[in-house]
Amino acid sequence: MRKRISPLIAVLIATASMGAAAQQAPKPEQQIKWRQSVYQVLAWNQARIKANVEGTFNKEDVIRAANSTAAIANSGLGALYGPGTETGKGWRDTTVKPELFTDAKGVGEAAANFTREANELARVAATGDAVAVKAQFGKVGQSCKGCHDDYRKKD
Amino acid sequence: MRKRISPLIAVLIATASMGAAAQQAPKPEQQIKWRQSVYQVLAWNQARIKANVEGTFNKEDVIRAANSTAAIANSGLGALYGPGTETGKGWRDTTVKPELFTDAKGVGEAAANFTREANELARVAATGDAVAVKAQFGKVGQSCKGCHDDYRKKD
Repeated sequence: MRKRISPLIAVLIATASMGAAAQQAPKPEQQIKWRQSVYQVLAWNQARIKANVEGTFNKEDVIRAANSTAAIANSGLGALYGPGTETGKGWRDTTVKPELFTDAKGVGEAAANFTREANELARVAATGDAVAVKAQFGKVGQSCKGCHDDYRKKD
Repeated sequence: MRKRISPLIAVLIATASMGAAAQQAPKPEQQIKWRQSVYQVLAWNQARIKANVEGTFNKEDVIRAANSTAAIANSGLGALYGPGTETGKGWRDTTVKPELFTDAKGVGEAAANFTREANELARVAATGDAVAVKAQFGKVGQSCKGCHDDYRKKD
């Protein structure tokens, strides 16, 4: 058992010390790192569901991945696109396009679309209907792609 | 609307092309990147809950963060510690200790502990009881720390 605190614990202590300013937005670089991480977790879930609908369908595995996707979609991702995050580096340089910060209507529709399709995927996954999961999985993928097309730069 | 496919779509196409081997484990580097991302998303959720229990308590924000934490805890994280991931680089070099791959009993207990506390946090968050959330949030943090102490190297 080591005594040195982990980076996560350090962050928690640091935020605790902020006192009355505790609800200030995290630093832009932190927001970018967190949103880049969010998309990787979503990618993991998507890859798992894809493997299930293309290979042997494991209902419980699909439910776990779909529930994680929906909970993340519902978790308020817009908070990770705060002022100052138009450019900058998290794990790597952000690939967000400037349009994400100016096209509020389009972004709102894209976000609502993803959230709706992700929640529907969780609902369908719970039924264990592999054919329905495959169809709904495609809709989630389209909602991802639509947002990437409009608001994400090429790597 | 650009035509170039995103990395995520490329991954999905690649996994689809695997056919009968679709449920093979992702490459070690991919597993490491995904698990590093998982912990960042958990850190984001924890930071948000911390800000709420230290500052102004927003019930809905806490529910969103707690539900995301629980869904991720329930999502089968062990799959991201497959053979070949003892060392290697995802976003950065892994900080996992060798003991994680040999101490099955201890790891199982640590994982079960985190999962139990995370699900209890989601249950408590739904009640909107700020005092209870703060107490349970502390238990989740202890479950994180316990696992870090035993199975995570210093940075």
